[in-house]
Amino acid sequence: MDRDNVLLTPGPLTTTLQTKLAMLRDWGSWDADFNAITARVRSRLLEIVGATHSHVVVPLQGSGTFAVEAAITTVVPRDGHLLVLDNGAYCKRMAKLATMMGRQTTLKTFTDATAISAGDVEALLVADPSVTHVGLVHCETGTGVVNQLEAIAEVCRRRGAELIVDAMSSFGALPINAAELGLAALVAASGKCLEGVPGMGFVFLRRDLLEGMEGRSHSLSLDLYDQYTYMERTGQWRFTPPTHVVAALDCAIGQYLEEGQASRLRRYTQNFDTLITGAARLGLKPYLAREDMSPIIVTLLAPDSPAYSFDVLYQTVKKRGYLLYPGKLTDVETFRVGCIGAIDDTAMEQALEAIGAALKEMGIAD
Amino acid sequence: MDRDNVLLTPGPLTTTLQTKLAMLRDWGSWDADFNAITARVRSRLLEIVGATHSHVVVPLQGSGTFAVEAAITTVVPRDGHLLVLDNGAYCKRMAKLATMMGRQTTLKTFTDATAISAGDVEALLVADPSVTHVGLVHCETGTGVVNQLEAIAEVCRRRGAELIVDAMSSFGALPINAAELGLAALVAASGKCLEGVPGMGFVFLRRDLLEGMEGRSHSLSLDLYDQYTYMERTGQWRFTPPTHVVAALDCAIGQYLEEGQASRLRRYTQNFDTLITGAARLGLKPYLAREDMSPIIVTLLAPDSPAYSFDVLYQTVKKRGYLLYPGKLTDVETFRVGCIGAIDDTAMEQALEAIGAALKEMGIAD
Repeated sequence: MDRDNVLLTPGPLTTTLQTKLAMLRDWGSWDADFNAITARVRSRLLEIVGATHSHVVVPLQGSGTFAVEAAITTVVPRDGHLLVLDNGAYCKRMAKLATMMGRQTTLKTFTDATAISAGDVEALLVADPSVTHVGLVHCETGTGVVNQLEAIAEVCRRRGAELIVDAMSSFGALPINAAELGLAALVAASGKCLEGVPGMGFVFLRRDLLEGMEGRSHSLSLDLYDQYTYMERTGQWRFTPPTHVVAALDCAIGQYLEEGQASRLRRYTQNFDTLITGAARLGLKPYLAREDMSPIIVTLLAPDSPAYSFDVLYQTVKKRGYLLYPGKLTDVETFRVGCIGAIDDTAMEQALEAIGAALKEMGIAD
Repeated sequence: MDRDNVLLTPGPLTTTLQTKLAMLRDWGSWDADFNAITARVRSRLLEIVGATHSHVVVPLQGSGTFAVEAAITTVVPRDGHLLVLDNGAYCKRMAKLATMMGRQTTLKTFTDATAISAGDVEALLVADPSVTHVGLVHCETGTGVVNQLEAIAEVCRRRGAELIVDAMSSFGALPINAAELGLAALVAASGKCLEGVPGMGFVFLRRDLLEGMEGRSHSLSLDLYDQYTYMERTGQWRFTPPTHVVAALDCAIGQYLEEGQASRLRRYTQNFDTLITGAARLGLKPYLAREDMSPIIVTLLAPDSPAYSFDVLYQTVKKRGYLLYPGKLTDVETFRVGCIGAIDDTAMEQALEAIGAALKEMGIAD
C-alpha cells in the first residue's frame, strides 16, 4: 500500500499536509512577496526566543551543520579559543569543523550517558582563562540527553566566556530565552521541532557582537555577517534561497504559534511518556536516566539477545508504517525513537505495537 | 486573483505541478527508499553529461554558490593557483570565495559584453605557468553571455591546467560532455534548467583526481571528498539532506529525460527567439550581440527615456502575472528576462504584451 510512513526520527520528521502544501508554489527570490515571507519568518523566530531586541537572526541555506559552522566562523575571532563541551556525536562534529577552519579548539569529552554539569564547565574555564568561547549542544541527538543550558550559560556569563549553542533538535520544543541567557549565538534549523521541511538553518547573533564579525569568515557561503548585512539592505538572501523550504517553514511557524510552545512540548512529552511506558512493557530500557532524557528523541538499549537484529526490527516496523532511527553509539547496541514531528501519542502507541510485533517475530520474549 | 506568477528569472524558475507534487511526502533521510532516490539522481546526472565512467557526482545542500565554493576547496590544492576568467558577477564571486578560503587566486577581468576568447586564455596560461587551475562560468547569468567551453577546455588540456566550470545556468540546456572535455569539476544546481526547486547543488569530480582531495577542504560542510566517501559507503548524505528538494529534483529529472536535452534546448530557444523578436518590436535592444547570447537569460537595455522606471515596469508586468529580473550591471541600466523553466513561447508572448503595456503606461513610445 502506497501510504506515507510516519517518521520517528529527529528531523526530517513528519510534517503536516498544510506545511507541505505551502510548497506547491514557485516564488521569485527577488520578489517583494517572497521577501515578505523571509521577513515574517525572521521576526517570528526572534519572538520565539524572546530575542527581538537583543539579537538578530540570519537564515542560511543548507543543513543544520552548515549553520553551526557558519556560527563558529562568524562569531569566534580568528585568534579566539573555542572550548567544545562534548557528550555526543554532534559536539564532536562542532569541534571538528572549528578545527578544520583553523580556530584554536579544545574538545573536552564527558560521558555521553549524562548531562554535562555546570560545575565541570566552571572548573574548565577557571583552569584555562585563554578560552574565549564555549560551544554547547543543547539536546544531543546522539543519545537524546539534554544539557543544562541555563546553568552553563550562567557560568559562562560569570566567567566572561561567550556561549554558542547548537539547539538544533530542541529549538521550539524546550523553552529558550536567548536574551536572558545572553547567548553569543544560537543555532537551529527548519526541519526539527518547528516541523518545517529540511533545507535551511538559522542563527541568532547577539547584536552587540555584530560589529566585530565583519571579514572574520573563512567561507563566503557561510559568512553570516555578509548574509545579514545584505539581507538588511535588500530584504533578500545573498544567494538563491530554497524558496519552497522557506515557504514551508513560514507555514509551519504559523501552526507552531497557533499550537504554542507549551502545548507543543506537552504533545511531545505525551509521545515521550507513551514511548517510555510502552518500551518498559516490552522489556526495553532507555540508555539514559530519566532526568537526563528529553521528549525529543530517546535512545533504547537493544534487547540482550542473539536473536536481535536492528535491520529486522527496522523492516518489520517499517512494514507497519513507522520509521525508527538507528543508534549512534559505538560501544553499546541501541536504537532511537523520535518523539517530535506532527504526530501524537496514538502514532506512538501504534509504533510500539509494531516494535512489539517485531520482537515477537524475532522470538525475543519481553 | 490568487494565481501563480510565471517566473521569467534564471532560477528559482517556474516548475511543473508534477515536480512540486513530489514534495508532498516526508522521507526518512536514513531510509532505503530515500537512498534509492539519491542514487537515481546521481546516476542520471552522470548520464546527462556523459560522465558515468570519467567522473563521480556529489550532491551538496545549499545554493549553487555553496557547490562552487565546495568544488574550489576540494579540487584546488592548498598550494594551487586558481586563475578565474571574469566576464561577469558570478566569475567575480568565484574569485572572492577562492580568495577568502586562502587559495592563491588571480582574477582576470574581460569585458562583460562578449564571450571570453580561448586565445586570450592560452596567452594567460603561457604568461603564468604557476597557474594550476582555471575557473570558468559557462553561461554568465549576470548578462547571459555564453563562454566557449569547448575551446577553453581544449586550451586548458593542452597547457596542463585543470578546468573548473560553473555551469549553474546552462546545465541541462546546453550540451556538455564532461568526459570529453576532461573537466576537473563541473558545478550545477537543482533549481535551474533541470527545472527542479532550489536547495541543493551538485558537483562532478573527475575520478583520477579523487585520491588527492582528502583533507584539502577548509570547511567540513563544504568538503566534497568527505561527502563523497560517506555517500559511497552508506548511500546516505553526511548531514540532513533537503529531502523534499531531492525528491522534486528526482521527479524533474524524470521529466527532463522524457523531454530530452535537445527538445528542452529547442523549447528554450523558441522562448528566446520570441523574446528577441518581441523586444525588437517594442524597441528594446539586447545588451549582447546575437552570437554571445544564450537561450537561458537575456539582458535588455532599458529604454533611453527619463520616464523609464524598472520598478514601474516590474510592478505592471507582475500585475499581469509575470516576474522579470533586474539587471546586474553597474554602468548600464538594464533588465533581464529568463527563457528557462516550465514555460513555452505562449508565456513569453504574453509577457511581452505585458512589457509593452508597461512601456505604454510610462508613456514610452516604441
